[in-house]
Amino acid sequence: MGRLRSKDVLRSDQFAVDEIDWILETAQRFESAIDAGEVLDTMKGLVLATLFFEPSTRTRLSFETAMHRLGGSVITVAEASSSSAAKGESLHDTIKTVEGYADVIVLRHPQIGAAAEAAAATERPVLNAGDGAGQHPTQSLLDLYTILKEQGKVDDLTIALAGDLRNGRTVHSLALLLANYDVKLLFVAPEALRMPPEIVDGVKAAGGDVGETADLGEALREADVLYMTRIQRERFDDPAEYERLKDAFVLRREMLDAAKPNVTIMHPLPRVNEIVPDVDDHPGAAYFRQSANGVPIRMALLALVTGRA
Amino acid sequence: MGRLRSKDVLRSDQFAVDEIDWILETAQRFESAIDAGEVLDTMKGLVLATLFFEPSTRTRLSFETAMHRLGGSVITVAEASSSSAAKGESLHDTIKTVEGYADVIVLRHPQIGAAAEAAAATERPVLNAGDGAGQHPTQSLLDLYTILKEQGKVDDLTIALAGDLRNGRTVHSLALLLANYDVKLLFVAPEALRMPPEIVDGVKAAGGDVGETADLGEALREADVLYMTRIQRERFDDPAEYERLKDAFVLRREMLDAAKPNVTIMHPLPRVNEIVPDVDDHPGAAYFRQSANGVPIRMALLALVTGRA
Amino acid sequence: MGRLRSKDVLRSDQFAVDEIDWILETAQRFESAIDAGEVLDTMKGLVLATLFFEPSTRTRLSFETAMHRLGGSVITVAEASSSSAAKGESLHDTIKTVEGYADVIVLRHPQIGAAAEAAAATERPVLNAGDGAGQHPTQSLLDLYTILKEQGKVDDLTIALAGDLRNGRTVHSLALLLANYDVKLLFVAPEALRMPPEIVDGVKAAGGDVGETADLGEALREADVLYMTRIQRERFDDPAEYERLKDAFVLRREMLDAAKPNVTIMHPLPRVNEIVPDVDDHPGAAYFRQSANGVPIRMALLALVTGRA
Repeated sequence: MGRLRSKDVLRSDQFAVDEIDWILETAQRFESAIDAGEVLDTMKGLVLATLFFEPSTRTRLSFETAMHRLGGSVITVAEASSSSAAKGESLHDTIKTVEGYADVIVLRHPQIGAAAEAAAATERPVLNAGDGAGQHPTQSLLDLYTILKEQGKVDDLTIALAGDLRNGRTVHSLALLLANYDVKLLFVAPEALRMPPEIVDGVKAAGGDVGETADLGEALREADVLYMTRIQRERFDDPAEYERLKDAFVLRREMLDAAKPNVTIMHPLPRVNEIVPDVDDHPGAAYFRQSANGVPIRMALLALVTGRA
Repeated sequence: MGRLRSKDVLRSDQFAVDEIDWILETAQRFESAIDAGEVLDTMKGLVLATLFFEPSTRTRLSFETAMHRLGGSVITVAEASSSSAAKGESLHDTIKTVEGYADVIVLRHPQIGAAAEAAAATERPVLNAGDGAGQHPTQSLLDLYTILKEQGKVDDLTIALAGDLRNGRTVHSLALLLANYDVKLLFVAPEALRMPPEIVDGVKAAGGDVGETADLGEALREADVLYMTRIQRERFDDPAEYERLKDAFVLRREMLDAAKPNVTIMHPLPRVNEIVPDVDDHPGAAYFRQSANGVPIRMALLALVTGRA
Repeated sequence: MGRLRSKDVLRSDQFAVDEIDWILETAQRFESAIDAGEVLDTMKGLVLATLFFEPSTRTRLSFETAMHRLGGSVITVAEASSSSAAKGESLHDTIKTVEGYADVIVLRHPQIGAAAEAAAATERPVLNAGDGAGQHPTQSLLDLYTILKEQGKVDDLTIALAGDLRNGRTVHSLALLLANYDVKLLFVAPEALRMPPEIVDGVKAAGGDVGETADLGEALREADVLYMTRIQRERFDDPAEYERLKDAFVLRREMLDAAKPNVTIMHPLPRVNEIVPDVDDHPGAAYFRQSANGVPIRMALLALVTGRA
């Protein structure tokens, strides 16, 4: 699978199914090695630049841990205010400069399309760690990896995506990625925050089986996997509607009594109040394991695009 | 001394005397190795997360150097504003996330009890690098290590703690730690900033020999070790009283003429004006060596709690 | 060339010519090793502290990459606001503290003379990464290295320095460094921003051949190397003069038709609009290669001052 060598990772829908499989297998291999206490020198001597033009502790730290676990080194810009961009430098020039320092570049940027712009500026592989309302492909891949690990398979599952489906970058990417598999997708959202038609159509076009509901309880009875996201007050034109709806999209422990016994609960984190803490003890509460899965997935991607795996 | 494996380091009074001895011996062993130019791989492949929710250059850098000297890697959150906490995430959730990335966690936090809360959230060892007005146990241990190195022993010394003893977290912890040894403690403070009764009682209960004075000169004549801390204007209700007292707690070079010849001068740093710079050349001025001792002490703690020493 | 061991790097005019040659040769040796895919352990076990009391992504990242490429570790203060200086600590005390943690210190500071003050405080080598309007010697060395690599020699070249020559720290240092060689220097600036007489005199005193012009086009016809810098609006007392002049110091692709075929275009970066992007494709546009040359130069300096090369 040398196909991924020197490739950028910009969109979750850029991969062929066999490429996805290979990424997941590589992640599994690295995870097993680390769990066995192996010390890897896979990327020894290489340097990763993590450029975070907007803060994202979780994503930045997991990329950096991934690089360290592979024996590589990291240079970081974690504060936009301390960057050359603050002096009026274009993203193109920043990337042309950083390619002189690093072998692979991870970029988080508030503007949609920034990662593609960065990738166009350099021969070095660029990994998109979120470009505004655009894509966040490594999140989608770790979500998929989590479903595979928790359920032992992806095919034949009913996967409910719940919350703010209109604005949620994460659920858009995941839905399109899951359309590659033989799954039933259940979109669970209030009327004002329904999944955009182009995503629904995209999933259907890829052969996906789609249902929609506004009832979280109903979704919970059917789902093998429930993927929760947050509903934010500022997304509603009418504050009263937010007040009316918000409690309908909070997951409480007692609601899990009606769920399948081996249900998997996911969340991209951080959560605020949309999953009550007493859910954490449920064996299917996978969101912290999901977050940890970011490390092997990002190890796999870093090693594959630099030709080290 | 596998007893420390997987343990948290939360309070300076949590250790048994034989544990303290073992920490100091381990620090000495690492320090000798580094001084001899050895390159250690003790923690190769492991990742330390330093989470600093309030700034502390000194403590953060010395933990990071400690990890690097042991061959390990570091991931850092040095700015609270760039953290998930800024998005409303609880400390519990932040720690549950970071445990997926790191093998050991160092936390600095403005709220008392934060380190214990973090430790309760994770199986990974948590090291308290200061929790507001609470504890700062690694500082106390490096203080003790400094006394041992400078004086060759701890027992039978007269140790004067001077300055703001009412509010000084550092001197509280150190006093309680020293109560384990056969020392005389001399508390040197203006009336308004005297050592709190509960600390005095705690030291006495542990069998400590305690004296009190408001006269820095008197303390200097008796002390083998003088531990200076800063008196801050904002601690006084009456500004006039601050103006009257502040000069009485400034250490000047000529004052050392009346001290024991091998007196040791310590300070947790940063100092502002409470030790005049011409004191620095005195052979007993140990505060920068004290600061440097943070590295071997933190190497010892990191290696012990991860089972690598 | 053990002469550089334990030395500070404070000024671009501190080096003898044979020392400069040795730095450039060492840089070349490291660059070849990295290009050949070698993994170096030259500085394994050593720690570099990068202290940036004002932001400079480019310089900080290239020092950090340099240390990582040599197998060493890095501790960083990238935000002045998170440093002990914010608590009122003197630079002297900060440096005395950091020498307890690191084997070599890189300092960027807004005040002229700060690097020399830091060097006076510690036995550890200090590398000046820019001290306000003062010096930035590693920039001058990488500029020289770039000329050597791009042109194959330094002697017998005509080198034009263009833009704001009055205020440009970079061009002052480079001019003085180039005066060691048998070059013709052409200073290209509007009247208000001419090279200060003391620099012109210094270059002439060192035997340099100097010309001056306000015409960028004329300079471009003569130059083997054109070193562009930015003209900033705030440098002019009269805004109208800025408006009149600014376009005269913008390099456009068609202007290169009149240049020598193998002309080298340099710029310390970041650029804002003084080099139009379509110049980037010109084979002589060397500014991003120049930026990348910071890594081998800083590898050489780090290794030489710590006695590892």
